[in-house]
Amino acid sequence: MHIKPQIRILAIDDSALIDEKVIIIGTFFRGGEQLDGVLRTEITKDGMDATDTITLMIKKSKYYAQIRVIMLDGVTYAGFNPVDIKRLYDETNIPVIVFMRSCPDFEKIRLALENLPETEKRWEIIQRAGKIYKIAQENPVFIQICGIDKESAFEIVRMTSIRSNIPEPLRVAHLIATGVVLGESTGKA
Amino acid sequence: MHIKPQIRILAIDDSALIDEKVIIIGTFFRGGEQLDGVLRTEITKDGMDATDTITLMIKKSKYYAQIRVIMLDGVTYAGFNPVDIKRLYDETNIPVIVFMRSCPDFEKIRLALENLPETEKRWEIIQRAGKIYKIAQENPVFIQICGIDKESAFEIVRMTSIRSNIPEPLRVAHLIATGVVLGESTGKA
Repeated sequence: MHIKPQIRILAIDDSALIDEKVIIIGTFFRGGEQLDGVLRTEITKDGMDATDTITLMIKKSKYYAQIRVIMLDGVTYAGFNPVDIKRLYDETNIPVIVFMRSCPDFEKIRLALENLPETEKRWEIIQRAGKIYKIAQENPVFIQICGIDKESAFEIVRMTSIRSNIPEPLRVAHLIATGVVLGESTGKA
Repeated sequence: MHIKPQIRILAIDDSALIDEKVIIIGTFFRGGEQLDGVLRTEITKDGMDATDTITLMIKKSKYYAQIRVIMLDGVTYAGFNPVDIKRLYDETNIPVIVFMRSCPDFEKIRLALENLPETEKRWEIIQRAGKIYKIAQENPVFIQICGIDKESAFEIVRMTSIRSNIPEPLRVAHLIATGVVLGESTGKA
């Protein structure tokens, strides 16, 4: 895959867990530099609606035809509401990169899921995200991918991580999601 | 005033008028390049609380001590809720630049105010923003200022208008404010 510096990216983050409904923010970026649009939707805390709701948000957006890659911040949003990245890819036809600042602790996740309904279904969706790749660098980060080769995904993550070890589209989505819900943005994506 | 390329700017825009309460978004920027924080508050449609609410949002922010200039998108928010830029400057001790893409039509504004309570007070606050300066360029823009000299304000507007004729902090505040409220961002600041 040839990666243009201005590749159009949609990055998705969620807000803090202060309500049953959790705000999801999408940032539509040109490469790592320019924010060109903001999307917003809502999903349910610990619900099962993340995949459908995010798919719909993307497909009804005026930016849909331009988006070349979707970036997620892990595969669970709003607590343990899992995103099925294979289905997200199949339904949008846009490759998906799941970005993680640390390698997920699956034992912990499995335990937490035991306290929720549909434990097995959530577990299966989380596992479906597949192999975890480490991007070796000063502060290593981790990704999972669907519909895109590893080298291209590495390149996109590196190219857009220009102000920290977090890709700009995700860093900005985090600032917006926390700022809008809490009144002032906090921490890191 | 010496303008550093990384000057910290807080830019403020409002969302669409779909409710009695209108969301106000503040973007905290380094120069025209990097978004470092997002603030959110609410004011009343056609109310009189814009000055106090925006002052409070700024003063209680963790970014307060770093902000070197406040950028407003005109002096009325949420319909005709006017910002008293002299009081905003006095209370925050931060210079204010009011940015406008076209020269305001004061006759029209005066007429619109006749339909609202406290007409004279609103009119007086709007007038208090003072002289309008034109920044002559391919697409001219207009500013009003408080606590900053004209040349420095021109330089800040020019330096930060890197992707359009709108300063980046205001362009991004607009994308966030409209995206968060409408589900997808629209138009220009």
